[in-house]
Amino acid sequence: MTDRDDGPSFSFVSEPEDTRERIMQATFETVQAHGFAGLSIGRIADRADLSKSSVYHFYDDKDDLLLAFLDAMLAQFGGPLADADFDDPETELWTLVDFGLYGTTGEQFPPVDGVGDVNGRPYVELRSQATHDDEYRDRFTDIDASMHERLATVIDRGIDDGVFRPVDPDRTAQFLLTVLLGGLFRRATSDGLDADAVRSELEAVVDDRLLPA
Amino acid sequence: MTDRDDGPSFSFVSEPEDTRERIMQATFETVQAHGFAGLSIGRIADRADLSKSSVYHFYDDKDDLLLAFLDAMLAQFGGPLADADFDDPETELWTLVDFGLYGTTGEQFPPVDGVGDVNGRPYVELRSQATHDDEYRDRFTDIDASMHERLATVIDRGIDDGVFRPVDPDRTAQFLLTVLLGGLFRRATSDGLDADAVRSELEAVVDDRLLPA
Repeated sequence: MTDRDDGPSFSFVSEPEDTRERIMQATFETVQAHGFAGLSIGRIADRADLSKSSVYHFYDDKDDLLLAFLDAMLAQFGGPLADADFDDPETELWTLVDFGLYGTTGEQFPPVDGVGDVNGRPYVELRSQATHDDEYRDRFTDIDASMHERLATVIDRGIDDGVFRPVDPDRTAQFLLTVLLGGLFRRATSDGLDADAVRSELEAVVDDRLLPA
Repeated sequence: MTDRDDGPSFSFVSEPEDTRERIMQATFETVQAHGFAGLSIGRIADRADLSKSSVYHFYDDKDDLLLAFLDAMLAQFGGPLADADFDDPETELWTLVDFGLYGTTGEQFPPVDGVGDVNGRPYVELRSQATHDDEYRDRFTDIDASMHERLATVIDRGIDDGVFRPVDPDRTAQFLLTVLLGGLFRRATSDGLDADAVRSELEAVVDDRLLPA
């Protein structure tokens, strides 16, 4: 089996500003190249060009480092999008969906400051730990809940503004979140996703069900 | 972090019939309990109550064993469903979708022989290897293509039979596959999926777009 190290690159930070950031960046690159099973403090230290003891200065053990990494990743995924201001609910909704389907905020809508292309592979690799580790599972349950809440709030605001029909915001948000994460999962683990086909079908669904006749 | 070993159980085979099957079953249980990062020939041998050399008698190394395991899993996922006969395209379509959303063939439709509850966790754990390993990525790309083909064929047959509208089968299949895998991914990695909400939204979408007015 060969390691895959040629995916689109992605940085947590434009330039690692301090040692902690260097370690987080090195962890990201190590997950991307070797997967979770190939992670070790030694490999991360090598990639960060640090000694193992420098890494242990900041993190007690591998678990401690990985939970810090998980938090950094989730902040990267959710942070700039959480702070972004959107002109209207429809733009906001598609920006969130395109984040999953394409890993970008889409060509159709202006990019959100601080959110570039997101390579979903390390996200999926991390998230797969939740299949057998309760601590990860609880975190991703919280993350999904906050993403669901975000989508439901957008839909709710759209209904208030009269741009969306009076649908059930929770049900619609559950559905959109499943499509969004399905796109991200497929994109990260196979070459078969036709994101344009999924998006155009979803546009038709939104036209039929969410937008006023 | 704690291992999660309390998920719904699932057997490849009702009773391991020979040593290979015992090894595959032990591999399944080890992935479920410890994840991919916790897999070792020693751990698998212990769980199968075999010596390590017995395992090496059948498989050259861990990679060889894991690729055999991948094939066994994919046969388990796809096999019985591939052979099943369905009375009508709509039943077949929902059976495939419910497989992802619920891990079962659903209460609403008769169970398919040989397909019971499927715990998606080891599937997601295996599939996450495709984020950094081309051999896994190629296999899951093939798997998705065959699942897509299956869905498109069902839709096509439904159109021929006059039970579905003349939609684009490829586009619709891409969309359904993304919902199905999104459900499976969420179910395996968080406690937040409201499968009933997703299904009822999808029923409304199918009503609107696929079924004749």
